[in-house]
Amino acid sequence: MATSSSQPDGKRGRTGSAQGERPLDALLPVLRGVAQVDFQPSHWVGLVFVIALFVGGWQYGVFGLLGTVVATATAHLLGVTWDRVSMGLEGFCGTLIGVSLVLYLGVSWMTFFLVIGGAIAGSVLTSATNTVLTPYGLPTFTAPFCVITTVMVIGGPSFERVWAGHVNTSAPSVTDPGTTVSWTDVWQGTFNGVGQVFFQDKWYVGVIFLVGLLVAGRRIALVAFLASLLGLLVGWSFGAQAADLGAGLYGYNSVLTGIALAGTFVVLTSISGVYAAIGAACAAALTAGIGNLFSVVGGHTLTWPFVLVTWVFLAAAPMFAKIHRAAT
Amino acid sequence: MATSSSQPDGKRGRTGSAQGERPLDALLPVLRGVAQVDFQPSHWVGLVFVIALFVGGWQYGVFGLLGTVVATATAHLLGVTWDRVSMGLEGFCGTLIGVSLVLYLGVSWMTFFLVIGGAIAGSVLTSATNTVLTPYGLPTFTAPFCVITTVMVIGGPSFERVWAGHVNTSAPSVTDPGTTVSWTDVWQGTFNGVGQVFFQDKWYVGVIFLVGLLVAGRRIALVAFLASLLGLLVGWSFGAQAADLGAGLYGYNSVLTGIALAGTFVVLTSISGVYAAIGAACAAALTAGIGNLFSVVGGHTLTWPFVLVTWVFLAAAPMFAKIHRAAT
Amino acid sequence: MATSSSQPDGKRGRTGSAQGERPLDALLPVLRGVAQVDFQPSHWVGLVFVIALFVGGWQYGVFGLLGTVVATATAHLLGVTWDRVSMGLEGFCGTLIGVSLVLYLGVSWMTFFLVIGGAIAGSVLTSATNTVLTPYGLPTFTAPFCVITTVMVIGGPSFERVWAGHVNTSAPSVTDPGTTVSWTDVWQGTFNGVGQVFFQDKWYVGVIFLVGLLVAGRRIALVAFLASLLGLLVGWSFGAQAADLGAGLYGYNSVLTGIALAGTFVVLTSISGVYAAIGAACAAALTAGIGNLFSVVGGHTLTWPFVLVTWVFLAAAPMFAKIHRAAT
Repeated sequence: MATSSSQPDGKRGRTGSAQGERPLDALLPVLRGVAQVDFQPSHWVGLVFVIALFVGGWQYGVFGLLGTVVATATAHLLGVTWDRVSMGLEGFCGTLIGVSLVLYLGVSWMTFFLVIGGAIAGSVLTSATNTVLTPYGLPTFTAPFCVITTVMVIGGPSFERVWAGHVNTSAPSVTDPGTTVSWTDVWQGTFNGVGQVFFQDKWYVGVIFLVGLLVAGRRIALVAFLASLLGLLVGWSFGAQAADLGAGLYGYNSVLTGIALAGTFVVLTSISGVYAAIGAACAAALTAGIGNLFSVVGGHTLTWPFVLVTWVFLAAAPMFAKIHRAAT
Repeated sequence: MATSSSQPDGKRGRTGSAQGERPLDALLPVLRGVAQVDFQPSHWVGLVFVIALFVGGWQYGVFGLLGTVVATATAHLLGVTWDRVSMGLEGFCGTLIGVSLVLYLGVSWMTFFLVIGGAIAGSVLTSATNTVLTPYGLPTFTAPFCVITTVMVIGGPSFERVWAGHVNTSAPSVTDPGTTVSWTDVWQGTFNGVGQVFFQDKWYVGVIFLVGLLVAGRRIALVAFLASLLGLLVGWSFGAQAADLGAGLYGYNSVLTGIALAGTFVVLTSISGVYAAIGAACAAALTAGIGNLFSVVGGHTLTWPFVLVTWVFLAAAPMFAKIHRAAT
Repeated sequence: MATSSSQPDGKRGRTGSAQGERPLDALLPVLRGVAQVDFQPSHWVGLVFVIALFVGGWQYGVFGLLGTVVATATAHLLGVTWDRVSMGLEGFCGTLIGVSLVLYLGVSWMTFFLVIGGAIAGSVLTSATNTVLTPYGLPTFTAPFCVITTVMVIGGPSFERVWAGHVNTSAPSVTDPGTTVSWTDVWQGTFNGVGQVFFQDKWYVGVIFLVGLLVAGRRIALVAFLASLLGLLVGWSFGAQAADLGAGLYGYNSVLTGIALAGTFVVLTSISGVYAAIGAACAAALTAGIGNLFSVVGGHTLTWPFVLVTWVFLAAAPMFAKIHRAAT
């Protein structure tokens, strides 16, 4: 429903000088930025996602919006085309930088300034990643966010003021070990998988995010739900910790990979549907490897598994006669 | 001698629809896949290599063939050109995924399914790597195998069922430390260097692999032998552990780098021969750095040194007036 | 003043056969190689830098020159164009390989041979990196040096003879902890930031390097000084260790990033000046993350933060209408 107003306005031209004429011109790209975390260029979807963030905790809403605004404004001021800025493509990494830094570093003025700095750096990194990936027709996905947050939490302990309010965010299985999966783990874990894309671990917040995806389209919401369940089942079959499955930690990378591969960047057919499912399963399986790798230096899994798996599955497509990239 | 039948059959066309008409059409690409671990597109070489794997242990033969079959079939089903499938270029990473996973995770049904999953993922990764490297004219080498096995053994400990039968594969020097190199270390180490390409640490298995390379050509076998010896000597001169030298751990990356640079991907001249020797020496020297790097997170050296060094030496060639890439 | 004689001599042609006709033809590229560590193609600047190295310690001068000579000669013998060789572009990674290895591994014959081997490998890696980066218009910067020295110090402990004379080079804050910054820390740290580009930690050596940059141009020296101060202030504001700030450890990556982005590879305007300052600040902030990452495996920060940040800020430029790459 929201697609008509989310189309880029060609008349504004490259410099985007018209931005700021009306408050909406500044607001809508920010909401679309939040929605683009799940690949949706719709401000209505973004609005539901912002509500979900505030339900999860006021700080996630405030710092997530701060990151989105700063990243979008940086790109605009440096002269990125208005098409990209308007569609929210310059904002979504800032959203996740804001949410993740307030989660790992705590609410403080230092975190406030770090989110601003991180969002500026993430904006430059988004453009650099675009330059490198454009010859291969690959999007940046959330890679710039992953890089910025990873280096900030790895470097953090060296800086007394940065690390002063840091939060110990160990996996739920550390305090609640065991591999016996309950029904509660399964259903809450499936919803949490949708919410964990934004670092949210309450099942009803996941439900609100799913409602947001329903606004984008029923197929997208269904894919997200099934992908989250698939990721959980993959982890379960390998013998992952039940508490981590219940927290959605094996689902969120599958959700993003599933949405990306099933209809968004690949034309959906029966064979590409299997291809997307394999990708979503790989993202869940890779979660443990990435987590163990980064835990050595104090990093976090973030959405690295999604980024890496989806890049691989998209980059491979031209070699496969049976898989066709969608025109984007 | 085997080259005439290993030529791609142009008449089969892109879809490879003719595959499966005769059992041989399915079998030969699998054997060539095993042979391609050492860059040979010959099913006779592959047959000798398979014998060597079974002599090393039935599980290496079975799981190696399983990985080769699954990787080759995945590529074929997804529509990779019959040329590549037929030449075994889609199989060799699967071979090594099968052999390495049964070595590190033990013989079990879980390992069986992990080899299938790993070979499917490795097949997709092979195509993705090809897309990225084609502009630079670089082959994937065994990089997809290295990535898949690395992430699986790093992530493994998080999964109770995956890790249940894992094998402690510490370097021989852990139980047998010391840097005094014996004559036995030297001659067994040189043969083991050829066998360690396939994770085999019995000198007579290395001899069988060398016989396989003799089938491919006398020059290739000679290069492999000399490169293995060179790698061992580099490690020795730096003061590496004698038991590791004797196990061929400083030789196998030099073997692959030597074959790749001396005549396979670079036109062999006196100056490019020196270039290949430098590359083989670098691969041996890099072995320690890669091993120490991955040991922190439970990873293994695999053929990373070969992949990285050979990519660098091939990518550098266009800048050097004295080094010419071979037409492939 | 030195620019007229540092121009490549087109008449010598691609094969560089004229090299060696006069001793100066061999000497000047070596001096320019030392100067190119700071992007300057001037042998006079290189001469001042060599003096600074010898003031810092005879071994830095000797091993730095050794690395420069070997890297330059390797490139020339393999047939790199005389333009690049003559301008010192094939030497500067060798300079830093020599200085860093003698710092970390101590003065010995083994280090002597390792510098030769490292400089040869670094020369090949420089050409490989050029092949990969040329499509994006990015220079290699000191990446080849960073790779070579990183793998050598990570692998070193596995080799008895390599590691025999290694030096424990822990950060100054290990023996002198605390975050109270003194005026001495600030002024010495700013000069040290210029010297630490070459691993020198005496403030007066930093002053000599700054004099060398003055020979290149007043603007360049000013940018280097201000960038070093900026890096120090960024670290200070985050609460970094005072002894590390005083040693210039938060400055040298900012110095290189500042010089690269402010007028060398980007056309200097008011907005690109801010862009360069953001880049220099990012390089300082990234220093802690890279340091913590590598410390797990015994690696060092080196100039990785500069390389990564400057690549990102240059690669991003084409997406920004307000930032223009300089013709190089």
